[in-house]
Amino acid sequence: MKSISLMGATGSIGIQTLDVIRQHPEEFLLSAVSAGRNMEKTRDIIREFRPSLVSVQLKEDAEKLRSEFGDITVLHGEDGLIETACFHEADVLVNAVLGSVGLHPTLKAIEAGKTIAIANKETLVTAGHLVMEAARKKGVQLLPVDSEHSAIFQALQGENPKNIEKLIITASGGSFRDKSRDELVGVTVDDALNHPNWSMGAKITIDSATMMNKGLEVIEAHWLFDLPYDQIGVVLHRESIIHSMVQFHDSSVMAQLGTPDMRVPIQYALTYPDRMPHPKGKRLDLVEIGKLHFEEMDTDRFKCLGFAYAAGREGGSMPTVLNAANEAAVALFLKGAISFLQIDDLVERALNGHVTIQRPDLGTIHEIDRNTRKLVDSWV
Amino acid sequence: MKSISLMGATGSIGIQTLDVIRQHPEEFLLSAVSAGRNMEKTRDIIREFRPSLVSVQLKEDAEKLRSEFGDITVLHGEDGLIETACFHEADVLVNAVLGSVGLHPTLKAIEAGKTIAIANKETLVTAGHLVMEAARKKGVQLLPVDSEHSAIFQALQGENPKNIEKLIITASGGSFRDKSRDELVGVTVDDALNHPNWSMGAKITIDSATMMNKGLEVIEAHWLFDLPYDQIGVVLHRESIIHSMVQFHDSSVMAQLGTPDMRVPIQYALTYPDRMPHPKGKRLDLVEIGKLHFEEMDTDRFKCLGFAYAAGREGGSMPTVLNAANEAAVALFLKGAISFLQIDDLVERALNGHVTIQRPDLGTIHEIDRNTRKLVDSWV
Repeated sequence: MKSISLMGATGSIGIQTLDVIRQHPEEFLLSAVSAGRNMEKTRDIIREFRPSLVSVQLKEDAEKLRSEFGDITVLHGEDGLIETACFHEADVLVNAVLGSVGLHPTLKAIEAGKTIAIANKETLVTAGHLVMEAARKKGVQLLPVDSEHSAIFQALQGENPKNIEKLIITASGGSFRDKSRDELVGVTVDDALNHPNWSMGAKITIDSATMMNKGLEVIEAHWLFDLPYDQIGVVLHRESIIHSMVQFHDSSVMAQLGTPDMRVPIQYALTYPDRMPHPKGKRLDLVEIGKLHFEEMDTDRFKCLGFAYAAGREGGSMPTVLNAANEAAVALFLKGAISFLQIDDLVERALNGHVTIQRPDLGTIHEIDRNTRKLVDSWV
Repeated sequence: MKSISLMGATGSIGIQTLDVIRQHPEEFLLSAVSAGRNMEKTRDIIREFRPSLVSVQLKEDAEKLRSEFGDITVLHGEDGLIETACFHEADVLVNAVLGSVGLHPTLKAIEAGKTIAIANKETLVTAGHLVMEAARKKGVQLLPVDSEHSAIFQALQGENPKNIEKLIITASGGSFRDKSRDELVGVTVDDALNHPNWSMGAKITIDSATMMNKGLEVIEAHWLFDLPYDQIGVVLHRESIIHSMVQFHDSSVMAQLGTPDMRVPIQYALTYPDRMPHPKGKRLDLVEIGKLHFEEMDTDRFKCLGFAYAAGREGGSMPTVLNAANEAAVALFLKGAISFLQIDDLVERALNGHVTIQRPDLGTIHEIDRNTRKLVDSWV
């Protein structure tokens, strides 16, 4: 029986993590959860899974829950998040929060020696050097949950990392893959949220449409698999069937495939190095699919991908700025304050205005993150 | 330094094995080789690699070589083949001979405790139960060299075999994949030898055109990976880029991909569990390829595949008959004695006329093999 602590339980990855736990009651126990402000979903989770610890964003919500569920410890805010991340009963933390807010709890969980299933790519983008160094020191394992990184991780099982020649990350192309930049001028939030293959949260769906999601994944892969950017490529693959690949120096390529279903990588992270049945998962039927397509990734068309490579190669505090500017810009787009193409513009402006600080510490990263968001907001 | 004994050095797989050895002179040493009747190629091999032991098919050829190369032991016939298979200096035997003639030397090499890289699928088809049982008893490893089985083997690294749900073997479809059965009536040997993706020996190229090659591979996979036939599927994939796949019970599919290059699986078998560089190998460029196609395999169109499944499921001596009848029929086709479609007919007739013997021993297998060939020849 594996005891699981889940940060971000009411988001898309959180909900699918709960489904994995639900399918394997004899294997998994939900011991702690954090949620944001969705109290209805939080109550449902408490009723179904009876975790020992619950943390929510707001104090008043925490107080309400405490009065409703007497036998459960209820916390709130960042302290609550950190308590969830480090919960003593948990064997593994699933970090499924959105954005760089996941960084501090992740570092605390590493300190506490927790195995971490990480879906929160912004944490690695914003402070990959701190996270990886802390994990190395503590001997803590970071297990990828993103379908692309899980695919690479699965392809690397039984392999010697020294033999890797290249990672090939696949990209569906997102909601606007068939539109030119000119055609993107008038697109709406609803258009952008209509992803062709994956059903995901709003932020990642917008990131997919701008291709920033793939950029963040490139940086995430750089940290998780300890490879230079020249050895990380991206290819447009509209069907999202090959989830990513590893090319070895003998020219052999190992790939992981499947119908788009986030429960597969989530479950793999929870059962690693073994696998467990997933009877509800639709089996891949390549005959039914018929064709898999591959196209070059155009960084003129998808500027954010180019920005991410440049920020990643620059290193230091530049990826922090990339991520913070993008989080701020996507939030502005989602509330209708800017147009879709302005996301690119704001990110570019933030990057151009930043002077890199090498090896920033946690305090510096928090400061740069905060200041970048303020700056981007101030431009609108 | 790994010392290699190579059976079938002048065939297609043999020549490519020599190229792998040539590329890694610091890693591999060719200590023993067997060849058939091609003395020109055999002399070239001796001059380049200076093996300690050479075996050829005919006594007179052996005598000539002995007088030309005084410092090398030269043998001939089946005894010579067995000496090559069991050569005391060799760490690994590459069995690249064609047909069930490879069975006896393989069993002897297993007895001698040699690791075997097996490209000789007929050996496993004709007597898989004897080979696998002997290997199990001796703790000897059989490393697949066929690109499909190597792909499956690579996909299984770091995995627990109990989690396998299904093997998916890909088939290019061979030379006549776009012809209906009616259109196959007048095809010539030259037509059949024109394989779209792979440059291989004549027998395997004909087997690809009849789809018997895929049938033999299904039976080979049954033995190598210890799975029932219901868990082994075949899909038509014309580009031969995905070399085969393993579907696990969590619905995840692991695949090995690459440009068609037999040196990759050969080298993998020689370097397993590690990999070594293959700088001459063309790297996979999925963008250049653009599309991968998958189609259903039609066993009405490709009857031999259906025969192989049926013979495999029946078990006992039936696969021996399948293989012997096919070897005889292909030989008849190659010398112009029968038409292409008669290959199917002769195999079917041989299978229909056979009463299965369960768990045949080596003597019985040899007898059935010999009698089946005689019978098929007598029908023409």
